Amino acid sequence: MFLEKLDWRYATKKMDPSKPVSEEDVAKIIHAVRMAPTSSGVQPFKLIVVRNPEVREQLKAASYGQSQLTDGSHVLVFAAWDNYSDARIDAVLDQVQEERGANEGMVAYYQNLKNMYLPRTQEVNFEHASRQAYIALGFALAAAAELGVDSTPMEGFEPAKFDEILGLEGHGLKSVVMLALGHRDADNDWLVNMKKVRKSDEDFLTEIN
Amino acid sequence: MFLEKLDWRYATKKMDPSKPVSEEDVAKIIHAVRMAPTSSGVQPFKLIVVRNPEVREQLKAASYGQSQLTDGSHVLVFAAWDNYSDARIDAVLDQVQEERGANEGMVAYYQNLKNMYLPRTQEVNFEHASRQAYIALGFALAAAAELGVDSTPMEGFEPAKFDEILGLEGHGLKSVVMLALGHRDADNDWLVNMKKVRKSDEDFLTEIN
Repeated sequence: MFLEKLDWRYATKKMDPSKPVSEEDVAKIIHAVRMAPTSSGVQPFKLIVVRNPEVREQLKAASYGQSQLTDGSHVLVFAAWDNYSDARIDAVLDQVQEERGANEGMVAYYQNLKNMYLPRTQEVNFEHASRQAYIALGFALAAAAELGVDSTPMEGFEPAKFDEILGLEGHGLKSVVMLALGHRDADNDWLVNMKKVRKSDEDFLTEIN
Repeated sequence: MFLEKLDWRYATKKMDPSKPVSEEDVAKIIHAVRMAPTSSGVQPFKLIVVRNPEVREQLKAASYGQSQLTDGSHVLVFAAWDNYSDARIDAVLDQVQEERGANEGMVAYYQNLKNMYLPRTQEVNFEHASRQAYIALGFALAAAAELGVDSTPMEGFEPAKFDEILGLEGHGLKSVVMLALGHRDADNDWLVNMKKVRKSDEDFLTEIN
């Protein structure tokens, strides 16, 4: 149960290199990312799963040396589309029609989407795509917690270096956030037993009844 | 199990007004939003839970008439901080030290955070805050699915009108995304039995082994 793991989950600071995440669990986490909803079903990002230890060392060097990248066993990098384009939206529409059958309503829907997206600046579209990747990050965090897999979401890295290491340049993709996967080294993690701090209702919640 | 509900979940198009979501379930979904991780634990957004039917009618009018807002029983609006500020970061640090004890490392950490955030433009900080809200949206979607509660994530609304209806103006908050909660009216929902369309591994996934 995901809901029973909300307190168990934390942004793991020290992972145990002797306890890699099973490929069975990783496959389930990838599946959750794939099934996350995105605006108009466009899925405007790519998931890069890094197992290779040398590549994870390079990523760590571009992440201020954060140890989870190499003490954990897998790094998931979410790389958002740098922009929307005719071709990218057409590919979504083509797949929808291929899998659900021809549908004039869908043709009109995605034409409207193009009319909305394509005149916008690259920056606005990239931000919109990035937000969709963050929904999927939420799903990955939830899936990992449910499986008892520890994870650390991280924004603290040099995106341009990540893009270079991962070969994203020239592919219309930009690294936006990553999730390290592993199992906690509870004896050596300063955060594991700290009280979780969350805002009070007054600061967090407004109810309109 | 969240992972068993990935196919069951879909962006519900028609909700059944005779089946409101129980307050017990809503409380669990709110709790999941609260426990979602955010960058440096700042929680730079507020959750607005709208039950009031008249207010939901107003929100629907500012959402191109999407029926889920009134056929469902609850609308969760995620309103991100419009910017970071000294006072907002200080409040986070104060709470951390109050709940975990005084800690010089934390003081330095949040001072560094201010040095990074405060010189940035309002737009960059608002986008960063919005992304954090989307992680929490992912948690809300996951929690609802686990509970068998239907939900529809929606970006298609007029943010300025939402801010006005919800009284956010002057509070440094901007509506960024919402989630309608309810239970599906399966007999009248065109989407419920449609095949879920997701990109192939080739288009979605890169593995570096």
